[in-house]
Amino acid sequence: MKAQVLHHYDPALTAPVWVTEETVPDPRIVKSNDVIVRIGGAGVCRTDLHIIEGIWRPHTDPTGTGLLPLIMGHENAGWVEEVGAEVEGFRKGDPVIVHPKVTGGTCIACRRGHDMHGDGKFPGLDSNGGYAEALLTSSRNLIALPRTLAPRDVAPYADAGLTAYRAAKKAAQQLLPDQAAVVIGAGGLGHIGIQVLRAMCAARIIVVDISDTSLALAGEHGADHLVKADGGEVEAVLALTGGKGAEAVIDFVGEKGTTKKGLDMTRAAGSYYVVGYGEDIRVPTVDMVITEKNIIGNLVGTWAELTELMALADRGLVELATKHYRLSEANQALRDLHHGKIRGRAVLVP
Amino acid sequence: MKAQVLHHYDPALTAPVWVTEETVPDPRIVKSNDVIVRIGGAGVCRTDLHIIEGIWRPHTDPTGTGLLPLIMGHENAGWVEEVGAEVEGFRKGDPVIVHPKVTGGTCIACRRGHDMHGDGKFPGLDSNGGYAEALLTSSRNLIALPRTLAPRDVAPYADAGLTAYRAAKKAAQQLLPDQAAVVIGAGGLGHIGIQVLRAMCAARIIVVDISDTSLALAGEHGADHLVKADGGEVEAVLALTGGKGAEAVIDFVGEKGTTKKGLDMTRAAGSYYVVGYGEDIRVPTVDMVITEKNIIGNLVGTWAELTELMALADRGLVELATKHYRLSEANQALRDLHHGKIRGRAVLVP
Amino acid sequence: MKAQVLHHYDPALTAPVWVTEETVPDPRIVKSNDVIVRIGGAGVCRTDLHIIEGIWRPHTDPTGTGLLPLIMGHENAGWVEEVGAEVEGFRKGDPVIVHPKVTGGTCIACRRGHDMHGDGKFPGLDSNGGYAEALLTSSRNLIALPRTLAPRDVAPYADAGLTAYRAAKKAAQQLLPDQAAVVIGAGGLGHIGIQVLRAMCAARIIVVDISDTSLALAGEHGADHLVKADGGEVEAVLALTGGKGAEAVIDFVGEKGTTKKGLDMTRAAGSYYVVGYGEDIRVPTVDMVITEKNIIGNLVGTWAELTELMALADRGLVELATKHYRLSEANQALRDLHHGKIRGRAVLVP
Amino acid sequence: MKAQVLHHYDPALTAPVWVTEETVPDPRIVKSNDVIVRIGGAGVCRTDLHIIEGIWRPHTDPTGTGLLPLIMGHENAGWVEEVGAEVEGFRKGDPVIVHPKVTGGTCIACRRGHDMHGDGKFPGLDSNGGYAEALLTSSRNLIALPRTLAPRDVAPYADAGLTAYRAAKKAAQQLLPDQAAVVIGAGGLGHIGIQVLRAMCAARIIVVDISDTSLALAGEHGADHLVKADGGEVEAVLALTGGKGAEAVIDFVGEKGTTKKGLDMTRAAGSYYVVGYGEDIRVPTVDMVITEKNIIGNLVGTWAELTELMALADRGLVELATKHYRLSEANQALRDLHHGKIRGRAVLVP
Repeated sequence: MKAQVLHHYDPALTAPVWVTEETVPDPRIVKSNDVIVRIGGAGVCRTDLHIIEGIWRPHTDPTGTGLLPLIMGHENAGWVEEVGAEVEGFRKGDPVIVHPKVTGGTCIACRRGHDMHGDGKFPGLDSNGGYAEALLTSSRNLIALPRTLAPRDVAPYADAGLTAYRAAKKAAQQLLPDQAAVVIGAGGLGHIGIQVLRAMCAARIIVVDISDTSLALAGEHGADHLVKADGGEVEAVLALTGGKGAEAVIDFVGEKGTTKKGLDMTRAAGSYYVVGYGEDIRVPTVDMVITEKNIIGNLVGTWAELTELMALADRGLVELATKHYRLSEANQALRDLHHGKIRGRAVLVP
Repeated sequence: MKAQVLHHYDPALTAPVWVTEETVPDPRIVKSNDVIVRIGGAGVCRTDLHIIEGIWRPHTDPTGTGLLPLIMGHENAGWVEEVGAEVEGFRKGDPVIVHPKVTGGTCIACRRGHDMHGDGKFPGLDSNGGYAEALLTSSRNLIALPRTLAPRDVAPYADAGLTAYRAAKKAAQQLLPDQAAVVIGAGGLGHIGIQVLRAMCAARIIVVDISDTSLALAGEHGADHLVKADGGEVEAVLALTGGKGAEAVIDFVGEKGTTKKGLDMTRAAGSYYVVGYGEDIRVPTVDMVITEKNIIGNLVGTWAELTELMALADRGLVELATKHYRLSEANQALRDLHHGKIRGRAVLVP
Repeated sequence: MKAQVLHHYDPALTAPVWVTEETVPDPRIVKSNDVIVRIGGAGVCRTDLHIIEGIWRPHTDPTGTGLLPLIMGHENAGWVEEVGAEVEGFRKGDPVIVHPKVTGGTCIACRRGHDMHGDGKFPGLDSNGGYAEALLTSSRNLIALPRTLAPRDVAPYADAGLTAYRAAKKAAQQLLPDQAAVVIGAGGLGHIGIQVLRAMCAARIIVVDISDTSLALAGEHGADHLVKADGGEVEAVLALTGGKGAEAVIDFVGEKGTTKKGLDMTRAAGSYYVVGYGEDIRVPTVDMVITEKNIIGNLVGTWAELTELMALADRGLVELATKHYRLSEANQALRDLHHGKIRGRAVLVP
Repeated sequence: MKAQVLHHYDPALTAPVWVTEETVPDPRIVKSNDVIVRIGGAGVCRTDLHIIEGIWRPHTDPTGTGLLPLIMGHENAGWVEEVGAEVEGFRKGDPVIVHPKVTGGTCIACRRGHDMHGDGKFPGLDSNGGYAEALLTSSRNLIALPRTLAPRDVAPYADAGLTAYRAAKKAAQQLLPDQAAVVIGAGGLGHIGIQVLRAMCAARIIVVDISDTSLALAGEHGADHLVKADGGEVEAVLALTGGKGAEAVIDFVGEKGTTKKGLDMTRAAGSYYVVGYGEDIRVPTVDMVITEKNIIGNLVGTWAELTELMALADRGLVELATKHYRLSEANQALRDLHHGKIRGRAVLVP
């Protein structure tokens, strides 16, 4: 099959091309629950740029010799192409979205429903992913798509959307109608998070972003208050919340000072949710004690949560802005992402 | 002041008038946190008919001699008229809604936030209520109204709305976007419950009612599926939920067979919420064990929950249909309620 | 292999023998995750008597023709004998306890961790179980035993213990140190429940039983108050709880009037947990509304909960009284159970 | 009355005496719910040293002119001496412990049960406290003591004990029997925390401390594993938890590097609870995202939680080591605390 393959790290992201289109061996069914999915859409994620930069090497390629060449792509949807001997409930041609973490299902994390904390592979990061015509995964990773949703339109939900969903769901389950949530960053993940909050709780939603375009989009997606991140955003949030801050602050940026500002926007006894990453959080213990705030880390969601997100998408309660590129245009998609030229999410299609 | 006073129980509800307008002594401030509220609206509730019938005598008038004459009216809103010596934060003229249970605030139930479970009085049931020009309550019972909300329009939220809110909130906090909630009975309380579910969770909402008019109203308020209660309602709900039933069923009727039907509509591991009352629940223990269902009782909500409900009303996320009567027309309002002539809730106004 | 086989229902439980020892074909590995367990202990449960009586026919044998002959036994522990081609983490000789519900692990209930609500078989009830030399199960059902725990000593934890654990855990997670829990019935399940409450919360524990022996055992296992079920047990519990009842009541009996008494012992806003079964629960809706009580059904626990229970047993925080019988003595064990001659739980051993 | 009064801050803690015994005016009842408590015990807390150092000036004395002279002492117990006109349920001579935060009870935080987050005074920090013969507080702050508990023995529960209780309770409500909790620092607060964990959950308890004496005490109070903080404590905890860390880590130190170590001991998806304070927490956002850890701030507990803690103490489930000093020996008590000469907690008695 054809695939876009990464052969070399490029720490400065200055190489003319990062991936090369090649013909590689087709994936093959090995285990009884293996499934091969023909790719209908493969999301292009900022994490892919970080892989190219080598930021993930300490985690996925510690000896620096074993991982490359790698087919990236961890946000995948498509159609079932072939199933292992014991797969039930799926057959060739079924449209599916693919949960990104391949686990065995028997460790205690999986058994408690936290499957993304289970042991396993994360295709696209530590094994071959979906920048290709087909992908090897497991029947445990599949979620059947309803007719309303096409693989090419939903692929980015598999990781970016699912991460935003999980963080916003955690907040929504705590938030009451007289309270307020702040979303910092209304980009690819943030605009999903806003819609999830809107669908799942009745708190007021305050969106903070540096871009007027993003703020306008946030307003369309249900934000109650729009705050320009012009240096006075903490004061603006405090003014909107009786001087006390918001019960929940979800930070989809996590760099350039948003962590301190995010904590400053958080009300006593409230929670600051970290989703975006880049800088260090630094906070005096005495402040954590006097205010009794919580700092909540957020990973990608569970298989069950991807099912929940697909239910929201199916009923039109969340929408995803996508820009499609041919698989052969993978370098262009990565470059456009790198240069901030994509509104919503880029998706590679056959 | 003028008041409508109940002097005699009428078990058959056949007397020509139930309450009589009289001039009674004005309420007086006694304790340092007492407040007198000038009534702007007093909701007329089916519980008032039950008081007249004597159904509440075992609870509120066990010796049968002490309670009458009684001024009914437990759903009150108005303006602060006079405050006790230590009341802070309220002054004459402030528009307020009145939480119905007057408690001291120091018992363990109050201290844990469950104030309606605290010891105290429930004016309109066990002491004089709001079918009058003024009402004695405590500063602990007041919630300031925003400008968007007039006392006469919100009074029924104080009990009917708050009860519906609490039950729907309990369900909403459990419900996920791939799940379903059934509301049985889309009348006075039910139509609030539907709106609260719509605002606070993303589950599908299935409404079951005997009346086409109520179903139509439910559709306007956000129901996803409307089911006529024509004898086949259990099968209809099962058909809408993959044969398994809904994760939450909120029963605002509680009589004429809805308890068995409600439990039959409830999915294994799901919860059946009792709000309306009349008949007995009867269920085999073995069914509770095999299905692991829950049966959840529901009282009126807390002061904090009334604050939450006011936040929803302020932002237009719940709306209440009301019909206004003069205080002097109290008997007419009660009669219209008794004969099913009121859509939404009746409210007595000055 | 040898097995004890049920060929005929016996509604009156009057036949001289119920099961017959026979040589049956050995179980065979079919699927890649199948496992054959050599039985070290098979618990004998009152449910087995109910199977013989035919009480479970409507659920497991609706046409009345397909189920028998059946090898009963749903509480199993032993040693891994043979594993399917893809089983990881277990090999021949490993001591294990077997979770009773065999599920595929991919339905939404399993994925949320509620595996006993998933679709699947329940060997011993609807397919062949552990009254035999060996049992066919899945690697998903196994939990490795620590050296401290022998299969013959822990087998009844697989269902009876796990059911008691789940109910007591639900209660413990709600109970605070100033509150009280009532356990009705300190027999096979109840004495596990008491120990679980003692280990997992600091509420006072009140045990109600008809038998002085059981009460004495309860006292050794950590009960704070012992109440003889002599007709005055509701009053006794009220006297121990300031006249208000206990925040949690766990009913391991569920017949002979305990359901009404259990609800009467439950405090307003408290929960009544149904575990034992037999009679109908009957309660007026108005009582559920005024008191805001909850009635909580309880099924067997999850695989993760069996892991938790094994952790408690490993550390000596729960202990199980057992009486061992040879497999060939299965009828004797069933008879002794039927005639109330077993303290704790009967277990068949090789 | 006599009181020990602070007149000057002493940043270096080098003055020969810090407080001076004086005769000051008796406290007077002003509001209808005021109560005067005759002091039976006033806990001497490290926070008092921090007040003397001036660390709390930014919070309690921002202009630097208004607060001193101050009577310190925020951990108080004694006997009711006089009650305001509307106080119910307490009379002269009743033994009581005093919740440290005086609030009005009507703000939303109080109404949700989080009274220590309400607006109000904190006697001993921002107004006169219990280093005296008597204290002015409110009836809302009193908890009646059972006969088993003398004021001089329980006073430190009012703040130190209550803070430890709240943090340990938060952890206990999350912890399952197959999981582990780490307690860093088994001193005054830590040894309460260990006992609370032991009483309220069945997780394994690992205690980390620099002192062999403290570790020995921890072992007596129920710790399962004792780890000397000798530089290898992170590795030791990982070795005890399968290399993955503990689900809960409660840090009663919060300085000298424990925050990084504490986070490193925390398992993925686990929680690190900050109680002790001193240094800054510093953690990369990417680590919070990949591991999905939580950092949980902890303030003093609620009035209801102090009730819960008294229930534990009453039943002997927590014990407090105290050392008594006369009120006239306040400087000695403070000095002994400063020089690490107190095991458990110092208490001033009449």
